[in-house]
Amino acid sequence: MENLPGIVITGASGRMGQMLVQTVMASDKASLVGAIERAGHPWVGMDIGEAMGGQAVGVVVTDQPLDAFAKAQAVIDFTAPAATLQFAKLAAQARAVHVIGTTGMTDEDIAKLEPCGRHAVIVRAGNMSLGVNLLTQLTKKVAAALDDDFDIEVIESHHNQKVDAPSGTALMLGEAAAEGRGVDLADVADRGRDGITGARKKGDIGFVAIRGGDIVGEHDVMFAAPGERIVLRHLASDRAVFARGALKAALWGQDKKPGEYDMLDVLGL
Amino acid sequence: MENLPGIVITGASGRMGQMLVQTVMASDKASLVGAIERAGHPWVGMDIGEAMGGQAVGVVVTDQPLDAFAKAQAVIDFTAPAATLQFAKLAAQARAVHVIGTTGMTDEDIAKLEPCGRHAVIVRAGNMSLGVNLLTQLTKKVAAALDDDFDIEVIESHHNQKVDAPSGTALMLGEAAAEGRGVDLADVADRGRDGITGARKKGDIGFVAIRGGDIVGEHDVMFAAPGERIVLRHLASDRAVFARGALKAALWGQDKKPGEYDMLDVLGL
Amino acid sequence: MENLPGIVITGASGRMGQMLVQTVMASDKASLVGAIERAGHPWVGMDIGEAMGGQAVGVVVTDQPLDAFAKAQAVIDFTAPAATLQFAKLAAQARAVHVIGTTGMTDEDIAKLEPCGRHAVIVRAGNMSLGVNLLTQLTKKVAAALDDDFDIEVIESHHNQKVDAPSGTALMLGEAAAEGRGVDLADVADRGRDGITGARKKGDIGFVAIRGGDIVGEHDVMFAAPGERIVLRHLASDRAVFARGALKAALWGQDKKPGEYDMLDVLGL
Amino acid sequence: MENLPGIVITGASGRMGQMLVQTVMASDKASLVGAIERAGHPWVGMDIGEAMGGQAVGVVVTDQPLDAFAKAQAVIDFTAPAATLQFAKLAAQARAVHVIGTTGMTDEDIAKLEPCGRHAVIVRAGNMSLGVNLLTQLTKKVAAALDDDFDIEVIESHHNQKVDAPSGTALMLGEAAAEGRGVDLADVADRGRDGITGARKKGDIGFVAIRGGDIVGEHDVMFAAPGERIVLRHLASDRAVFARGALKAALWGQDKKPGEYDMLDVLGL
Repeated sequence: MENLPGIVITGASGRMGQMLVQTVMASDKASLVGAIERAGHPWVGMDIGEAMGGQAVGVVVTDQPLDAFAKAQAVIDFTAPAATLQFAKLAAQARAVHVIGTTGMTDEDIAKLEPCGRHAVIVRAGNMSLGVNLLTQLTKKVAAALDDDFDIEVIESHHNQKVDAPSGTALMLGEAAAEGRGVDLADVADRGRDGITGARKKGDIGFVAIRGGDIVGEHDVMFAAPGERIVLRHLASDRAVFARGALKAALWGQDKKPGEYDMLDVLGL
Repeated sequence: MENLPGIVITGASGRMGQMLVQTVMASDKASLVGAIERAGHPWVGMDIGEAMGGQAVGVVVTDQPLDAFAKAQAVIDFTAPAATLQFAKLAAQARAVHVIGTTGMTDEDIAKLEPCGRHAVIVRAGNMSLGVNLLTQLTKKVAAALDDDFDIEVIESHHNQKVDAPSGTALMLGEAAAEGRGVDLADVADRGRDGITGARKKGDIGFVAIRGGDIVGEHDVMFAAPGERIVLRHLASDRAVFARGALKAALWGQDKKPGEYDMLDVLGL
Repeated sequence: MENLPGIVITGASGRMGQMLVQTVMASDKASLVGAIERAGHPWVGMDIGEAMGGQAVGVVVTDQPLDAFAKAQAVIDFTAPAATLQFAKLAAQARAVHVIGTTGMTDEDIAKLEPCGRHAVIVRAGNMSLGVNLLTQLTKKVAAALDDDFDIEVIESHHNQKVDAPSGTALMLGEAAAEGRGVDLADVADRGRDGITGARKKGDIGFVAIRGGDIVGEHDVMFAAPGERIVLRHLASDRAVFARGALKAALWGQDKKPGEYDMLDVLGL
Repeated sequence: MENLPGIVITGASGRMGQMLVQTVMASDKASLVGAIERAGHPWVGMDIGEAMGGQAVGVVVTDQPLDAFAKAQAVIDFTAPAATLQFAKLAAQARAVHVIGTTGMTDEDIAKLEPCGRHAVIVRAGNMSLGVNLLTQLTKKVAAALDDDFDIEVIESHHNQKVDAPSGTALMLGEAAAEGRGVDLADVADRGRDGITGARKKGDIGFVAIRGGDIVGEHDVMFAAPGERIVLRHLASDRAVFARGALKAALWGQDKKPGEYDMLDVLGL
């Protein structure tokens, strides 16, 4: 185990943090070497395994990130923008790969990562799922390969608390389809279909949004022609997919030059 | 074969007519005894099997419906309202079961069937598919059995020439769900979801319409709660399902009293 | 909150126990009043909310079940057979509804519940999912309504660690379909289809088992006829569905006479 | 219309022949200029449109293929091996593109095409569906991009008359997946899963075959990892997809050098 890349998880007590801890512990390609929480959090000083209600794993939760980072090869960080900017400096100092899944970062925040990326590898992505990133690439290729006898529809399902429709990922897939076809999505997007719509306009890219229960996220890109359909489908059934993507990014970054990367780099797409 | 109920198909050269001919010929529960076309149609006088491009089957297309009806136990009729009203009188005269899949009949047209229904069995339905009729019943029962922790969505897919959304069948399924829950669909229907919608409103029944290619008709009623989903799905892959339903209705009607019936009667739902 | 039925969760630190705690806390129809762990467990004496890594919720984990049961209206118990038999006695003593989702109980174990069921309500089921229990009933009804022009296939997907195929639930669904048709499943089951099988035998009920990833459990009962299909589908995406079913059972049992019940009773199916 | 490539359909009265006729007539990129049947067939001498039960289209069915081929730019041929070999010679003589969807050709038959391919373009494929050919390419790429944390399953559904399982197309997809992973399908194929199978073996490629009704052909390649799945799906809902593929091949071949090609060439994959 000593030779496996050591990983530190920030925000270890949170929903995503615990998922990252479990993902790293379950991996045979990395080992968990640190778990960070903010000063004063009740888990600080506890074994992370026990704190999560299981067996001790020999890693004590700490509020001293730099000490932890210094012993690690990578930091995986799904916290909040302000914390992430602090961690980026410390990771750069420790020359550890910094995998950032934090959402809500402004352009200004992102700009502040730049100096850190000169000293260490940063991998940052809005969606860390391998599958969604791969699906986006496939969508573009298939849209380019097929002519407009194939009607394109992007169908997504999410939980009932989601406030926007279609999902950001659905729009990203629609953009990929439009790019594959050499058209502008804004010109062909057909959203909110309802009532007497008339026949479907050739070349349109349709979007429908299904909402219910606690669906984590499902996306279909359907290409439908007379007599046949191709469907590219991604199903996320738990948020661990982001943890898996993050771990893959952490391992991928081990032998890379300092710089800022995204999941397409990691996947080689 | 002599003892099988004999069936006559009206409008035999049309798309639906040919399908009905094939369905009856393929059945081991009925035999084809007549095929009707209008006077002057090129198929009149030809063997219906040969006219359709295959082997002779011993039934010559005729423009004399009453003669054909008199030798039959049932008439299956997907033509047009005016023709159907004529056929209804002749079927009543011949005491043959009259299965009507003709669409676009007005209330006035329907009222004119009433005297015919005093002499013979009439089965008439807007949708002759066994599956859709059954799905409607299931939807109502499931909606009644589950509480509103289960979000209901009706998802339908149709070909790209369809001009309205959601489909009439989707609305019928939504009505069934609302009835099962004891609510009025008009109060809970959520259609054309797009943009910043806010979280899904508890108790709503959502509709989404997918359009593409030549999809004959697919309907899902999804009941989604945290951690589980029930989906009642119907897929129609060719219009023969209407022919199958019509034949079932023709056979079912053999021992019934004169009167007007629908597919729920046929299915015993 | 004082008037909501109070629920105790046994085995509160386990994977299923934590899920039950969360389910009860999230409900507006019940309140959590107790959390049980075995003597010596590190969580004993901790607030259950904090132990699970969140906010305190005012319920301290205890190793004294009888005290907890005495203050409760129901006990939900997914532990192990020996523990469950102990808890059954204490629940009977406390006149609390005892909901048992424990698996692996022998007939002998089950027999030992009988005296407890004379004093209190017991609800026990092999599968606590509302959806699967409902799907079983629907399968039977649909199989009875459709003739054998509809080929029945039971398609299930589970995680890659599952050791048997098809799943117990798939077989239960197959039994329901066979019962609906008035045949014996043993005579018509078609399993492990591979190679030169010949055409499908009419009346058979086919089973296929898909394995991959961490799929919690998905079951389709497909009824396929020429041109149309009906599919009854259940998707379980997290084990919380068992928790939801258990809570529903606990609430349902509040006004029932002492006795042993199952999920069909709870669902009124 | 005069400038559109003219197409001749062989075996025009057959199920596939009629479909080809309809496909060409419906296209705005080609025109129907000939329809061939064997000498003595009742349709010879009839207008093909009328013979099919519709309006006259100005093309008379003939039993003289060479005359027809001489006026055409392409011949589409889904007949039988012996006829196809005859047609190949005539098409070569007429310098018409010969699109061959005929199945059951032996290696010996195929060898006999070689001299014809020296004079004219031949496009021949076991499966003319654009979608299936594309899906095969995608499967290979995705299998190469993902590691073996993703379990691969090939799931296919076909009509109840199919005698073999899994389908040839499913095996082709499995081969593509194995190739993408750099393994030999024979070493990893997991077929006919049933009984106490033990946990799924990492790296296996599973196959399941669903049979029912008249399903034309549905193929899913599922890549399942913990928490996410990618599914590449192809649905064929009518045999017209082969006609569409054949027409595309006929048009594609217009400006190609003489030689033998397949659908991957046509699709540029």
